[in-house]
Amino acid sequence: MKLFKDKLNQRIEKFNTLLCIGLDSDKSKLPSSFTSQFKFNKAIIGKTHDLVCAYKPNTAFYEAQGVQGIKELKLTCDYLRENYPDIVIILDAKRADIGNTSESYAKFAFDYLGADAVTLHPYLGKDALQPFLDRKEKGSIVLCKTSNPGAKEIQNLKINSKPLYQILAKKIAGKWNENNNCGLVVGATYPAELAIVRKIAPNMPFLIPGVGAQGGELDKSVGSGVDKNGKNAIINVARSIIFASKGRDFAEISRRETEKLKLEINKYRNG
Amino acid sequence: MKLFKDKLNQRIEKFNTLLCIGLDSDKSKLPSSFTSQFKFNKAIIGKTHDLVCAYKPNTAFYEAQGVQGIKELKLTCDYLRENYPDIVIILDAKRADIGNTSESYAKFAFDYLGADAVTLHPYLGKDALQPFLDRKEKGSIVLCKTSNPGAKEIQNLKINSKPLYQILAKKIAGKWNENNNCGLVVGATYPAELAIVRKIAPNMPFLIPGVGAQGGELDKSVGSGVDKNGKNAIINVARSIIFASKGRDFAEISRRETEKLKLEINKYRNG
Repeated sequence: MKLFKDKLNQRIEKFNTLLCIGLDSDKSKLPSSFTSQFKFNKAIIGKTHDLVCAYKPNTAFYEAQGVQGIKELKLTCDYLRENYPDIVIILDAKRADIGNTSESYAKFAFDYLGADAVTLHPYLGKDALQPFLDRKEKGSIVLCKTSNPGAKEIQNLKINSKPLYQILAKKIAGKWNENNNCGLVVGATYPAELAIVRKIAPNMPFLIPGVGAQGGELDKSVGSGVDKNGKNAIINVARSIIFASKGRDFAEISRRETEKLKLEINKYRNG
Repeated sequence: MKLFKDKLNQRIEKFNTLLCIGLDSDKSKLPSSFTSQFKFNKAIIGKTHDLVCAYKPNTAFYEAQGVQGIKELKLTCDYLRENYPDIVIILDAKRADIGNTSESYAKFAFDYLGADAVTLHPYLGKDALQPFLDRKEKGSIVLCKTSNPGAKEIQNLKINSKPLYQILAKKIAGKWNENNNCGLVVGATYPAELAIVRKIAPNMPFLIPGVGAQGGELDKSVGSGVDKNGKNAIINVARSIIFASKGRDFAEISRRETEKLKLEINKYRNG
């Protein structure tokens, strides 16, 4: 059995990249020659696979297309596992329900789609997430500090003078992580808070969205997000890579953007 | 345009029932003659529709079956809307993501499945849920105090001596409810806390799970959960009704359980 974090860090090391491409393949935004989200993803993957540690399809953009969308998502995950088994698949599903129900969500993410990790909401507490946490070889990446402008409304409420997201980070890095399979979502749009969370959880994989279209600063978020070995950080970029162009050369342009970003990330990572 | 809460309360009044059946149709638990979740749901609906105000399919049990499961869920929602347009459909999906992603989830719940309301996680804050809240005629039912044993781990953390779930209830009943389309999930397993939330949000629809298999006390939770007119409360029961029997007579037995429960609820509801 290989832990999620080992698979991730081996990939990071071998390909020298922290970059994750978010396959947020909103059907209405695809180049006009595409009707299949899977075929679009395949084109992006074909041009970028050697530059990334992970791909992260967000379920919302597939669900919006109903049955057909779930087919496209399944095809995408199957294609990745069959052709690039060393690349991490993170299902960005942001699920969480009471225990017997979370069990069914875990089946969807891990057994049906074969993802390596899934993103989760913390609000119900550890017992609700237990069916995910019990999957020792799979990653449970819990929302800690999200990248949206209004994240502070709930996440920065103070409990004994500490913001909720810090209390949560401590819980997740502690008791929730008994199988050494938890991770945290911490937005690049809040680099100072990212640095604080990294201190609380020095060895845990962080999924860091918010770079690119959302405007997170790359230098600060990479510098604050990596662990002491420059690893355990997954820098996710979606729209600014996959929709970099709508022209016939969209996949080449995506590769160019991905290369540029990979180099830039490594500059901040190593300095 | 009819508000979600008006559709709900009209149904409650006309059929004199607060009962909602949770269509948690876990495929592994269906009577052996069924391979289709939709056909099973249809049998349950056929025998119980005059006794309920709402049906609540939980997406997890359909997603676990992949593409076929989403088909079964869609067939179920379509069947309900076509045959029983006055019955409320609550999609128990517990979604929430940043704004542009929540928009896609809203499409799945409201446009694709045609649900009247959806359940949502609060952790990302109001701005993330805006695409749901902007659907004026649809219900946004936000998790407040959930029914699981470990709900208190996060939900009862104290902010200036008030537990988080109360702070949230106040926010949701206030600013989040500008379109008068919010509701709250408050578990029947915590009747004292349900009474407190009802004081904070006197006029809001409450979805109250946890009766039946989860052991919530019916008398206290109905008494504390209804508004001052004995309405705006949706008492959800799933497993103890839909899986009351695995025999050939399962639908009749489900009806018998539903009738019993409806009468019992109304006893506590009316004093």
